[in-house]
Amino acid sequence: MKNGRKRVVIENLRPEVDKGKYYAKCTVGERFTVQADIFADSHDEISAFLIVKEPGLNDWKRIPMKLVENDLWEASLIFDKTGLYKYTISAYMDHIKTLQTHIKKKLNANQDISLEIKMITEYVSSGANKQKSGGIKKLDASIKKLENEKSKQKLITYLLDPIIYETLDKHCSAEFTTTYENKLTVLVERKESRFSSWYELFPRSFSKTPGKHGTFKDCERMLPEIATMGFNVLYFPPIHPIGNTNRKGKNNAIVANPDDPGSPWSIGSELGGHKAIHPELGTMKDFQSLLKKAKDYSIEISLDIAFQCSQDHPYIKEHPEWFLWRPDNTIKYAENPPKKYEDIVPFNFETAKWQELWKELESIFVFWIEKGVRIFRVDNPHTKPYVFWEWLIAEINKKYEGIIFLAEAFTRNKKMYKLAKIGFTQSYTYFTWRYTKKEFITYMNELTKTGLKDIFRPNFWTNTPDILSVDLQHAKKPSFANRLILAATLSSNYGMYGPAFELMDNEPFPGKEEYNNNEKYEIKIWDRNKPGNLRELITKVNKIRNENEALQSTCNIRFYEIHNDQLMVYEKFSDDKSNIIIVAVNFDTVYKQSGWVRIPINDFKIKSDEEYVMYDLLNNLSFTWKNEWNYIELNPTGVAAHIFRLERK
Amino acid sequence: MKNGRKRVVIENLRPEVDKGKYYAKCTVGERFTVQADIFADSHDEISAFLIVKEPGLNDWKRIPMKLVENDLWEASLIFDKTGLYKYTISAYMDHIKTLQTHIKKKLNANQDISLEIKMITEYVSSGANKQKSGGIKKLDASIKKLENEKSKQKLITYLLDPIIYETLDKHCSAEFTTTYENKLTVLVERKESRFSSWYELFPRSFSKTPGKHGTFKDCERMLPEIATMGFNVLYFPPIHPIGNTNRKGKNNAIVANPDDPGSPWSIGSELGGHKAIHPELGTMKDFQSLLKKAKDYSIEISLDIAFQCSQDHPYIKEHPEWFLWRPDNTIKYAENPPKKYEDIVPFNFETAKWQELWKELESIFVFWIEKGVRIFRVDNPHTKPYVFWEWLIAEINKKYEGIIFLAEAFTRNKKMYKLAKIGFTQSYTYFTWRYTKKEFITYMNELTKTGLKDIFRPNFWTNTPDILSVDLQHAKKPSFANRLILAATLSSNYGMYGPAFELMDNEPFPGKEEYNNNEKYEIKIWDRNKPGNLRELITKVNKIRNENEALQSTCNIRFYEIHNDQLMVYEKFSDDKSNIIIVAVNFDTVYKQSGWVRIPINDFKIKSDEEYVMYDLLNNLSFTWKNEWNYIELNPTGVAAHIFRLERK
Repeated sequence: MKNGRKRVVIENLRPEVDKGKYYAKCTVGERFTVQADIFADSHDEISAFLIVKEPGLNDWKRIPMKLVENDLWEASLIFDKTGLYKYTISAYMDHIKTLQTHIKKKLNANQDISLEIKMITEYVSSGANKQKSGGIKKLDASIKKLENEKSKQKLITYLLDPIIYETLDKHCSAEFTTTYENKLTVLVERKESRFSSWYELFPRSFSKTPGKHGTFKDCERMLPEIATMGFNVLYFPPIHPIGNTNRKGKNNAIVANPDDPGSPWSIGSELGGHKAIHPELGTMKDFQSLLKKAKDYSIEISLDIAFQCSQDHPYIKEHPEWFLWRPDNTIKYAENPPKKYEDIVPFNFETAKWQELWKELESIFVFWIEKGVRIFRVDNPHTKPYVFWEWLIAEINKKYEGIIFLAEAFTRNKKMYKLAKIGFTQSYTYFTWRYTKKEFITYMNELTKTGLKDIFRPNFWTNTPDILSVDLQHAKKPSFANRLILAATLSSNYGMYGPAFELMDNEPFPGKEEYNNNEKYEIKIWDRNKPGNLRELITKVNKIRNENEALQSTCNIRFYEIHNDQLMVYEKFSDDKSNIIIVAVNFDTVYKQSGWVRIPINDFKIKSDEEYVMYDLLNNLSFTWKNEWNYIELNPTGVAAHIFRLERK
Repeated sequence: MKNGRKRVVIENLRPEVDKGKYYAKCTVGERFTVQADIFADSHDEISAFLIVKEPGLNDWKRIPMKLVENDLWEASLIFDKTGLYKYTISAYMDHIKTLQTHIKKKLNANQDISLEIKMITEYVSSGANKQKSGGIKKLDASIKKLENEKSKQKLITYLLDPIIYETLDKHCSAEFTTTYENKLTVLVERKESRFSSWYELFPRSFSKTPGKHGTFKDCERMLPEIATMGFNVLYFPPIHPIGNTNRKGKNNAIVANPDDPGSPWSIGSELGGHKAIHPELGTMKDFQSLLKKAKDYSIEISLDIAFQCSQDHPYIKEHPEWFLWRPDNTIKYAENPPKKYEDIVPFNFETAKWQELWKELESIFVFWIEKGVRIFRVDNPHTKPYVFWEWLIAEINKKYEGIIFLAEAFTRNKKMYKLAKIGFTQSYTYFTWRYTKKEFITYMNELTKTGLKDIFRPNFWTNTPDILSVDLQHAKKPSFANRLILAATLSSNYGMYGPAFELMDNEPFPGKEEYNNNEKYEIKIWDRNKPGNLRELITKVNKIRNENEALQSTCNIRFYEIHNDQLMVYEKFSDDKSNIIIVAVNFDTVYKQSGWVRIPINDFKIKSDEEYVMYDLLNNLSFTWKNEWNYIELNPTGVAAHIFRLERK
């Protein structure tokens, strides 16, 4: 029989990730909205507060919540610094606010209010008697003065002022205050967790001399170009020594030729493992010089962390107990029968020495962080225990701030979302396999309008060395342009396997969703100046992203009504609504499509018949529109898409 | 760094009510299904078990779960006795099952399996070495025997048998087993919690001499009639002494005439309070005699518990501290400005003496339970603190088994559902305000296809003394028949304010959703034998309910496709599918409506072109149908509805 006088119920608080076991995610500059169902056992008024504790501070800040509808209450704030914040909600029956409401209603119904007035003034004077000074004392004095003046109307007006309940609120007894049962956590991260543009390349294909093994020095030469194109993350496949045993040849051949370089994901040789650099790429000094130069161009280098070994990795001799040995004394290579991955050996996470294994794997991240790397693309995290990642990311977050983990988890949805819950900053997605308007709308609503929005940050990739999606196979420019614009405007985090995308490589390995002559198994020669490449379009799209805050968030999306299934139109807006971007895409890559689209002008406080400008940033075209319904037309041979900025006249 | 080798993830377990804070609900004979998302970090096989502990036992019973789809697993059981059961889920990577799967896949791909065979046999012999006797020893012996016989084919067949992993499972180490973080609770209640037919009457209107105050003795005379009609709960408005101060007159008049009996909900006078009986109804002995007689007819008497007082209730003098006194020394009567309820005084649940108040209120339930009452209709529970009800129902459940609480909570949905969570057995609903096919389908899906199904048991009332819904105002027989059939076949718990419904009282108080000349304020004279009354139809519908298990559950509903918005067709089925009821209702109460309805014959294993019988239990008509799509026609002047039983030929 505890707390019997706490009459307010607070439930269904959002965000609350798995009963508060995991933190919600937010970033600096982003609005964080907390909602809950709050109600009690009467028609009386409730006061409710979101209470928030900044990292490092002991005080809880109170933010008044507002009733939205049907017992749903809400409050929000924008964080200005990173770190782990705590939050919860408290609420109580507000007797003063209730009396004020009763007075208003009774005045309207011409009923007597003298008792209500007496009750408020008694509340105040009883509060004032308990205080030596402060707000209540002042209220009490003001009331006594108005009573003496005998101006009933002035007294009523004063007693109906919010200052009365706001002042008394602060003294509301804890005995009557319900506080939500969990103290929840939100991790506020740096802006790049929410807004990033990734460019992936294999350093070995970027030698000045075509066909020769490229180096980190060669990558330094690429930096100005990548910066000009507008990317801020440059991501490399694994940079470690590559195994010799069972090395794969061109196009994933089981037997390699002597000069085949092997897959960078077959990690480790007698030259070292996950903390070593493949000698043909350069030295640690070269790598650190590259990191430093990249910084000058506001580019961060992302490394690929793939927790697996070639048969030649030093770990195998040093820690045989970390691997699964079979009755014939061979090590178990990766397989999913009947498929075999002969050049890769997985760790055995069920080993009795799992604690040592975990610590060693953590030390790999620490090693590269200490060298200056702050962004990691994690290879196939869903094939290592979730409990391991949960521990690892928490450990890293304890030691360092602002480390970004991108999960390369092309797997079933529940596994993918679990990785987000346990700490991955961003994730690869199903974007690659969404082709129609209906599919995109359904997927975007799942990602941005459900609880996923609090944990899962999508990173939309146009292509990867593993995936050449069917819509790009043997495809022409309009298909590439669409995929670029969709990735870059639907999601604030996006990326491309750059050279292949820029040059519109559209040749699949027969019968597969992969590239033919895949760069994973060979050194490629990319003629990045080949006519008809996409560099200009990519540069334009990135410039629009960088200059328009609306495109720097993902959840701020809304789809517009348009009666043509080939046309999709959607809006993104900055938090203060000063920047409104409206994107129109044509899924028909051959024929012109047109239709009438409904612009919700009421929401922008544009009146009927008032003119407004739709400025197409992509094509430098200006349209003057009026009213809700307006005509658009997109022709794949001409203007393939619009990226409008809505401007008041 | 704990539990690093527990690789299986178990999340999103359902039912789990508010993080396990509240119990889920089930009844004897009802299927209880538990689902969870279960997955791990590889393609390896998982074994998962629902584990259940019966009340009073210490052992946990293991029920194997099955993968439904996309990492969703499920298991179910049917309880055969009442009480609080515990349940949770455990799961682990099943290496034996994985090896068996690999063998099968490799055999198909013509790959070598000798290592897999060796690994299984080593698992078994290593297990057998640790045991003195039992299953594993036997497995090991059988394998050794087959190895000696050198029949490789027989050995493989044996090693692929589920008995291998089932036997080894039992010895799987806890170190590798994930158990869901919460132990959850389900309250298994008696059948009447799920299946009940309520008849409400005011005893005072059932005197043999019309106009005289009726008694419990008069109610005894009603029992055979109510039993014949097929009801099993007879519910009375409050039976306590009625207050005199501010007593309401006819039609809620503020001033009563001297002979007005007053509202039974204005409880308490100098003759006693919530533990006393209104003298004109009879004595405690009379009441207990009625309870006993009712039992002979398999009828339970339900009392109305309304925690509020008239101004004359003895509590006011004995416990003034339980009420809210105003500065003018009057007690605060119930009000929701500008509305006033002058004949009712609420308790002040914020009183410093709240513990005493709670205990006294609990003692009222205990008092009537000790007299033999086991079903209570609780008046306006949402106007008393939720924390109070949570405590009270838990206390009663600790002391007594099988007490049923029906919440009369006509309030916003979150409040209504909160009462269900904290323990109310059944609840009044929005049934009364659903009028169209779309509204009914939406509402039924909300109640039966969401998490509500685990906590909220609807009780559909055709009418109450408080509500004459608009579709019944000035309405004719087809409207009454529809509302009866909908209430009685959509929900397994249903009720009626009997005399008014039977006699099709359709006269509203002008401008209100209430009856004119409401029985709440006067003694009525009901001529229950008036021609055209609904007794025969009600009797038929209750007989169908009592004889068909399909209609004794609520969540087993499915709506059929029919292309006519005036016709609604739905199915209910018994757990073993031996009893299939299909109901067809015509919302047009004036004109004939017809349409083609799709019967999902595949689900019933009926072949195309195979004949089946639709036997209409309501109208004693038999139809022979074939294939999926069949024609139905309903005419309000003739056959108003069908209640088919589907029968195989």
